[in-house]
Amino acid sequence: MKNTMALENISIILNETQLPENIGFAARAMANMGIMQLVLVKPKNCDLSRVRRTATGTSVDIVEQMEIYDDLRTALKPFQYIVGTTARIGSHRPAMADPRLLASELIPISKNNKVGILFGPEDCGLSNEQLRYCHKIVTVRTASFSSLNLSHAVMIICYELFMNSHEPNKISLPRLANSYELEGMYDHLQEVLMKIGFINPQNPEHWMNNVRRFLSRVSLRAREVKIIRGICRQLDWYTEQREKTRE
Amino acid sequence: MKNTMALENISIILNETQLPENIGFAARAMANMGIMQLVLVKPKNCDLSRVRRTATGTSVDIVEQMEIYDDLRTALKPFQYIVGTTARIGSHRPAMADPRLLASELIPISKNNKVGILFGPEDCGLSNEQLRYCHKIVTVRTASFSSLNLSHAVMIICYELFMNSHEPNKISLPRLANSYELEGMYDHLQEVLMKIGFINPQNPEHWMNNVRRFLSRVSLRAREVKIIRGICRQLDWYTEQREKTRE
Repeated sequence: MKNTMALENISIILNETQLPENIGFAARAMANMGIMQLVLVKPKNCDLSRVRRTATGTSVDIVEQMEIYDDLRTALKPFQYIVGTTARIGSHRPAMADPRLLASELIPISKNNKVGILFGPEDCGLSNEQLRYCHKIVTVRTASFSSLNLSHAVMIICYELFMNSHEPNKISLPRLANSYELEGMYDHLQEVLMKIGFINPQNPEHWMNNVRRFLSRVSLRAREVKIIRGICRQLDWYTEQREKTRE
Repeated sequence: MKNTMALENISIILNETQLPENIGFAARAMANMGIMQLVLVKPKNCDLSRVRRTATGTSVDIVEQMEIYDDLRTALKPFQYIVGTTARIGSHRPAMADPRLLASELIPISKNNKVGILFGPEDCGLSNEQLRYCHKIVTVRTASFSSLNLSHAVMIICYELFMNSHEPNKISLPRLANSYELEGMYDHLQEVLMKIGFINPQNPEHWMNNVRRFLSRVSLRAREVKIIRGICRQLDWYTEQREKTRE
């Protein structure tokens, strides 16, 4: 059985892409591999005549239907599982995978969840800040020269997803919380953790990154996010009561 | 153990490429995956300033050292194993593989043999005539839109070879006959098979293609090619004797 459904739920998200030709080439690679949803965030240049020059065949459909956003956080809202791509490997970054391993994990997730695969700009890739939205980080293993053309990176990821989607009998994973639910939860968590003095208000990012790394590894479901927010609300109430008692 | 030796023996051969940017992009994909030898055959346009625009990083070395030929047969001479790439699948074509299976077969061969992977022009790919030089044909499986950008096709093949070269404990295959030895043998075979009336002189290609398909599947060694040519020489002598007896 082909997992075509699994591919339908996967989007490629290009963040701050500089060259319109790369957008077209990426769309072409996607069309070759049956991944049809493209999201652009703050493209530096989105001259459609230049995009179309490299987007041949059915990739024209992808270009015509692509969504464009001004803000990454807004663009990511609908996604339940977000993968960041990077050439750089750092200890402060979440769980790593190569494209083949990633594909074997993503196909079961994508049957019931919207998956976004996020690519940074050509010159510098995704920042640590942007990688924080991601549940998982993927790196294409290379020889000594590690800088891939953007569309080549898109092609390798899409190729592995397409190959994996043709393997039979994959289990499917239940619906996960989307980025909108998760980011709301993280904001709320940070607020209450600061209130109870767990997080230093001078540098809240440090501990929040640890919390994010831990929770992104768990792949939270929507129901679980609601439970965590319930605890946060309870803590809100509790800290307010405490303030009142002190008065 | 890394099979770096295996990658050193692999060349990418671009036949009649039309756009210099695609040559540069292909070189970049090769450099990313540690495959450093590029051969061009009759490029339509090889404007080096345009090639270099897309060949960044260490792929500049590939471009500086690439070999350029006017004639495919000459370019293929040193190779013991030649793989043709095609998007089209036909019954008259030799054994097919996908890039992953191909890589698992090529890495053991390439330890002791020069391997060439041949890509046709952007618009029409390799002709049946050109595929005849190949021991094996590889096709990248795609969704409905099957036309890959040339550099994307190069990237997928190089990526699979690089991935496979990092798998441990591959056996290595002995030296095979190179294209020069093989093509000399095929010419000789055709000649004697026509002499003895096995092949119709009106349409020698039909039977020679069957012979080629059979022998390319065997992966002939240099010693075996010598044996076959020995038989051909013997047939030459035999047919001459017969003519003399008739006189």
